Amino acid sequence: MRQRLITLMSVLLLSLLSCPALAAQVPISKPKVRVGIVLFDGVQIIDFAGPYEVFGTAGFGVVTLSHDGKPVTTAMGLKVTPDASFADAPPFDVLLVPGGDVAEAEKDPEILSFITQRAASSRQVLSVCTGAFILAGTGLLDGLQATTFTPRIDELTRRYPSVNVIKDVRWADNGRIITSAGLSSGLDAALHVVARLRGEDKARSVALHLEYDWKPEGGFVRSRMADRYVPKSLEASVDWPKDLSMAQELSIGDEQQWRMRFHVTSATPADDLLQRIAKGMDSTPGWTQQPGANRWVSDQEDRHVMLSVETSPGAGAQDYQLELRVHTQAD
Amino acid sequence: MRQRLITLMSVLLLSLLSCPALAAQVPISKPKVRVGIVLFDGVQIIDFAGPYEVFGTAGFGVVTLSHDGKPVTTAMGLKVTPDASFADAPPFDVLLVPGGDVAEAEKDPEILSFITQRAASSRQVLSVCTGAFILAGTGLLDGLQATTFTPRIDELTRRYPSVNVIKDVRWADNGRIITSAGLSSGLDAALHVVARLRGEDKARSVALHLEYDWKPEGGFVRSRMADRYVPKSLEASVDWPKDLSMAQELSIGDEQQWRMRFHVTSATPADDLLQRIAKGMDSTPGWTQQPGANRWVSDQEDRHVMLSVETSPGAGAQDYQLELRVHTQAD
Repeated sequence: MRQRLITLMSVLLLSLLSCPALAAQVPISKPKVRVGIVLFDGVQIIDFAGPYEVFGTAGFGVVTLSHDGKPVTTAMGLKVTPDASFADAPPFDVLLVPGGDVAEAEKDPEILSFITQRAASSRQVLSVCTGAFILAGTGLLDGLQATTFTPRIDELTRRYPSVNVIKDVRWADNGRIITSAGLSSGLDAALHVVARLRGEDKARSVALHLEYDWKPEGGFVRSRMADRYVPKSLEASVDWPKDLSMAQELSIGDEQQWRMRFHVTSATPADDLLQRIAKGMDSTPGWTQQPGANRWVSDQEDRHVMLSVETSPGAGAQDYQLELRVHTQAD
Repeated sequence: MRQRLITLMSVLLLSLLSCPALAAQVPISKPKVRVGIVLFDGVQIIDFAGPYEVFGTAGFGVVTLSHDGKPVTTAMGLKVTPDASFADAPPFDVLLVPGGDVAEAEKDPEILSFITQRAASSRQVLSVCTGAFILAGTGLLDGLQATTFTPRIDELTRRYPSVNVIKDVRWADNGRIITSAGLSSGLDAALHVVARLRGEDKARSVALHLEYDWKPEGGFVRSRMADRYVPKSLEASVDWPKDLSMAQELSIGDEQQWRMRFHVTSATPADDLLQRIAKGMDSTPGWTQQPGANRWVSDQEDRHVMLSVETSPGAGAQDYQLELRVHTQAD
């Protein structure tokens, strides 16, 4: 008995939460928060697994749910068996809508109606990444601020004009309804939900237990990075070769500069592709070519932006690299 | 066709990796890296899910494996169906050993022998969190640097004297064999594995796609926080009441200061518990009580440390709060 107590104390007092699962203990006097996670084929692993870990560590009870309660296959192939079907879903306080390949899920009437119905009785509703498209499809985001996975922010803005889509936050908080930016942002937004329900100190405890450097005020915002200056009209304005294949090898940078490298395969030689891109850039409003170079400049927001494109040889004439660089400086 | 190409370009060039699953594309010219993830009952979700997301986004092929290939239940209850049993496991290049409730797994001869055998043929071996205990159990960490989940670093040190356990890193890199610190650290260490196999720029691309603020040099190190100064001998030196229950409500701070709050339930009154802790502290070498207060001071490493304990009333006499604070300052 004494040994058991010492072991217990060791866990609770000194090693704190030395066994991760014990972190699920909650103070005796407070009722347990229950979380319902909607799963579907194509769901992104980290979108639900990150928040699941956060909520579980906070001592919340978590159930996973799918339309028919049968196993789902995530976007990367992991097979997960939900705890219950929508019909058998127990009551819960927090509704989590993860993202991933949501092309099917955002049109699925059963998913949309389950979310509409259960959101109404939830104290908090949180979408992660492209889960915002599912939430927007229910109309729940109408008139609210929302964000999503950075590369799809413009699409969310275009498709849902009644949603106030913002691009400069790690999560958008409307009180009851919260949307997070892409993928790992779900961890941070879930911690924010813990903070709303149990206080910021509790959320900080959970983050520290997870050895995660949570920033209560927001933290890393991917959509602020300098690739936001690449003109979106290039998609339509460049006469892309019909046989073109471009595999992205790199896409890195920060708020001031960005660099993308693609492995190109096409019968169109590198110089020809560069000319096509140059023609597209020349017809892009707001950009001016610098004489004698595949380099364009533009003034955007409060910054002077320079965009350059170049190619480098690969294994053969139909196989080369294309690099696009953005540099910015304050006006 | 034109529409399809524009859509393709939209994804690849402009929206970059607008659909998370497409991030799995790899450059045509390079062979695919294959990852094998060992699963077991009690595995911690984020320990395997974080690295799975990282490796999948890097274009690596990922398979999940368990002893018999049957579904496993994670430490928090999520049910996952592995791709194969150990016997049917395909070849792979990276072996991932996650942690969680490893009490059973670290003694399981089938898990230990599978890891021993497959580690030998793997280009990289990575343990996450308490997965280091499983790896240590195979002898693979003998003579190497290793780290683990912060609250269990001392236990790893004690139980495996032939392992050089370190506590000031987010991951310990021995080249082929890498161990990460707790839970979310697995994301960072997996990115480091991508950097080792595909270069740091590739790993940074993956992190930025995941909207994750990865620090190639390491980042947040939980074991550096000020709770490391709480004397571990209190476990044995305090005469804890037999009926004591302590639920941790908070455990927060930084490298300079720390604060823990427990919800206590015991027939022993608060003042009596404080006296027992004081008696334990008084017999703790290196600590000096400050007159008239439940406050002790100690010089440790290059810091002056002050520890204080106090209680505050709860719902009743057998139900109160205990708070422990650590403050440090440079000598």
